[in-house]
Amino acid sequence: MDISIIVIGDELLIGQVTDTNSGWIARHVNPLGWNVKSVKVIGDDEAEILKAIGEGFAQSDLVLTTGGLGPTKDDITKEAMRKYFGGSMVYDTEVEKNVLEVVEKRHLKINDLTAAQAYVPSSCRVIQNRVGTAPIMWFEKDGKVLVAMPGVPFETEQMMEREVIPQLMSHFCSDEHIMHRTFIVIDYSESVLAMKLEQFEANIPAGIHLAYLPRPGIIRLRLTGRSANGDQLAADLDMLSGQLQDLLGSSIISYEDKPVAAILGDMLRERGLTISTAESCTGGNMAHEITAIAGSSDYFVGSVVSYSNDVKQLVLGVPASVLAAEGAVSQPVVEQMCRGVNDLLHTQCSIATSGVAGPGGGSPEKPVGTVWICVQCGDRQVAERYHFPGTRDRVIDRATMTGMLMLIKLLRG
Amino acid sequence: MDISIIVIGDELLIGQVTDTNSGWIARHVNPLGWNVKSVKVIGDDEAEILKAIGEGFAQSDLVLTTGGLGPTKDDITKEAMRKYFGGSMVYDTEVEKNVLEVVEKRHLKINDLTAAQAYVPSSCRVIQNRVGTAPIMWFEKDGKVLVAMPGVPFETEQMMEREVIPQLMSHFCSDEHIMHRTFIVIDYSESVLAMKLEQFEANIPAGIHLAYLPRPGIIRLRLTGRSANGDQLAADLDMLSGQLQDLLGSSIISYEDKPVAAILGDMLRERGLTISTAESCTGGNMAHEITAIAGSSDYFVGSVVSYSNDVKQLVLGVPASVLAAEGAVSQPVVEQMCRGVNDLLHTQCSIATSGVAGPGGGSPEKPVGTVWICVQCGDRQVAERYHFPGTRDRVIDRATMTGMLMLIKLLRG
Repeated sequence: MDISIIVIGDELLIGQVTDTNSGWIARHVNPLGWNVKSVKVIGDDEAEILKAIGEGFAQSDLVLTTGGLGPTKDDITKEAMRKYFGGSMVYDTEVEKNVLEVVEKRHLKINDLTAAQAYVPSSCRVIQNRVGTAPIMWFEKDGKVLVAMPGVPFETEQMMEREVIPQLMSHFCSDEHIMHRTFIVIDYSESVLAMKLEQFEANIPAGIHLAYLPRPGIIRLRLTGRSANGDQLAADLDMLSGQLQDLLGSSIISYEDKPVAAILGDMLRERGLTISTAESCTGGNMAHEITAIAGSSDYFVGSVVSYSNDVKQLVLGVPASVLAAEGAVSQPVVEQMCRGVNDLLHTQCSIATSGVAGPGGGSPEKPVGTVWICVQCGDRQVAERYHFPGTRDRVIDRATMTGMLMLIKLLRG
Repeated sequence: MDISIIVIGDELLIGQVTDTNSGWIARHVNPLGWNVKSVKVIGDDEAEILKAIGEGFAQSDLVLTTGGLGPTKDDITKEAMRKYFGGSMVYDTEVEKNVLEVVEKRHLKINDLTAAQAYVPSSCRVIQNRVGTAPIMWFEKDGKVLVAMPGVPFETEQMMEREVIPQLMSHFCSDEHIMHRTFIVIDYSESVLAMKLEQFEANIPAGIHLAYLPRPGIIRLRLTGRSANGDQLAADLDMLSGQLQDLLGSSIISYEDKPVAAILGDMLRERGLTISTAESCTGGNMAHEITAIAGSSDYFVGSVVSYSNDVKQLVLGVPASVLAAEGAVSQPVVEQMCRGVNDLLHTQCSIATSGVAGPGGGSPEKPVGTVWICVQCGDRQVAERYHFPGTRDRVIDRATMTGMLMLIKLLRG
C-alpha cells in the first residue's frame, strides 16, 4: 500500500521547526510492508492543504496528515478537511469529555480555546487523542482514507502506535512483504566500499536493492527487498548477509541499524567492562550519547566535563605545568584526562576529548576544528589528533562519533 | 519569489535519515524575502523526480533539490535532470579537477566512482562544489531555475552560503519584504496565552500574522509581516513588540529566537556568574546543551555526570546513608548533588538532576518519568519533583529544558 504524508505548519516552511513526524511514521509503517511514496510539507494555508490532499489521493490509498490542529488562530486544517470531505462542523461531546480529562491530568484549567477543540467535521470519525486535546480525525472518500493527526510529535507517535496503526491494519490488507537488512561499516570511504562490492552488487537477485547511507565515520549499507513471497525474500537476504560478512569481516560493526553508542555499549556489556568520559570540547555530548541508550547504566559510570583548565587540573590531575607548556588542546593533556577519569571513577575504559570547537579560540597552530582524542582500555591507550571541518555543532558531533569509534576499534583488537 | 524544495532519497522515506536541508534552506532564504511554498520528499525514483520537478515549476519560480547525487548506484537524480532539461551527459574536466582537489584534501585516493562525478548533463551550468565531490548543477527553462545540490547537509549548507544564494540573488530581484519577530514566553500554556492576547490579536494590522509555536516549557510567539514598504513594516512590528512587552512583562525571556541554553547563558554573563551541572538521569545532556552555545566558556566551568551511586557519593559528597534511606531519586540527594558540584568546581550556580528516564527502573512510588531537579544560585536553592511523560529521549529532553528554565526563573528573581 502506498502512503502520502502531508506535514502542515508555517513554522516548518521558515525552518523554525524540523519535521520529525514523517520520519517516525515511515520507520513504523515500513515493517508492515507499507510504502511511503512522498512527504509534502506545506504551510497553514487552506488552498495548499486542499491541493495536497488531492495530490495525495491521486497517488496513494492512504493520506496521513500531521499538524495544524492546535487551538490557536493560526490553525485552519480542520476547516480545510471539512471543505474537502463535506458536512458541517458539529460539537462532539465525547471529544469534550476527552479534552476535559487530558486538561485535568495536566493540572490545567479548560478555557474557550481548548473547548473549541470539540468541534469536528460531521464527515469524520473521531479517534480520541488520549495524550492531547486535538482530536484525531478519520475520513473516507472513494475507498481511500485520510487520517489527520496533531503536529506535536509525542501525541502523533503515541496515538499512531496505540490506535491509528492498528485501525489501519484492520482496514487495509497487505500481501506484499518489504524487508530491510542494515549493516554498519567502518574502515571504508563510500566509493572504495562501492568498488569492493561491485561484483557482489552485480549478483543481487531481482527485487532486492542495495543503498549506501554514509554518515561521518561510518557507512550504513541497506538491503531492501520486496516480494509477495516472504520466506524466499528472507532466505535471499540471509544469503546476501552472509556474502557481505565474508567480504567485509570485522569492518561490519553491527548487523542492525543502531546508534554507534549502542554498538559500543553492546561490546562493553559483552566484555564486562565499564566506561567513563572526560570531556572538554565535546562538553558532555559523549556522555549524553552513551546514556541516551536504555540500559547504559550496565556499563556507564559517569563523566567529568572539564570545560575550564581548573577542572582539568583539580579533578582530573592534569599538571599545571603541562597545561602551561603544551596548552589544553594537546596529546599529554588528553592522555592524562583519560587516565584521570578512569582513576577517579574506577572504570576500565575511558574516552577523553580536548579541542577547539569554534567559532572562536583558534590559532595558526591549532585552528578551529583541531581536536585531540584519547581512548583507553586497561593499560592500552591510543591518542590521535584530528581536524574536523564545519561549524561548532559539527565539530562536537564528529569528535563525539570519532571517540566512540576509536574505542570500538581498540576493543575489536 | 516562491520556492519549491525537493528532497531526494529512499533513506528519507523509510525514516532512516531525517531531512534537515529543507529547514536550513528555509531559514536562510526567508530573510531575503523569499517564500518556501512547499517541501516534497521523494525516493530515488526517476519518474517521481520528473513529476516533482513539474509540480515545483508549476507553483514556483525556483526549484531547489538536495540529495541523490552521490557516486554510488542508488543515485539516479543526475540522469532524471538530463531527461527533464535535455542534452547529453558530458565529461566536465573542471569538475574532474575539483573532485581531484577535494579528494586530495581528504587524503583519499580517486577511483572510478568518484571520477564518474565529472559526468554532467550538457544542459546545466556547473557550480563547483568546493567541499564535496558531487557537482552542483544550475538549470534554466522558460525563465525558471532549478539548482540541484548534494544531500550531505554540510555540503549543501556551505555551498548555499558561498555560491548558490549569492547567484540566486543576482538572478532574481526581490521587492517584497518579509520580516519576523520572535518572542520566547514562559509561565503560560498555549490556550491561556491565546486568551490573554485575544484583544492584541484583534488589532494586528493587515499583512502581519501571529503564530503560536509551543515547545515543552516555552511558547514561541512569532509575528510575520509581508509588505512592499519595509520601513512601515518595521515600524508596525516595533509597535506590536512594545505592546507584547507591556502585556507579558518578564514572562518574555527573549526577544529573539534562540535556544533556552543561550538565554540562560546571556543572563549568567550579564550577572558575572559561573555555572556547573551535576547530572544523573540527564547524563550530560544539560552540559551538552549549555556548551553547544558558542562562547559558553565565559560562564560554564564543567559538569559531573554521576550516573552510578558511587560517583554521587565519592565525587559529589552525597552521604551513603542518604542514598540508602531515600534512594538516588530524591530531594536530599539532588540538593546535595547541586551543592556538591558547586563546591567541587567553585561555581556560583548549579543545576542537578536525578530521575528515572526509563524504560526500565520504575517503581510504584517512583514510576518512569519521575525526576527531581534542583537549581542553586549562591545560597538560594530550589528543588522540585516532576513527572515527565513519554520515552527515554523525551524524559531526558524535558528534564534538561526544565532545569534550565528553573534556573532562569531563580535568576529573574
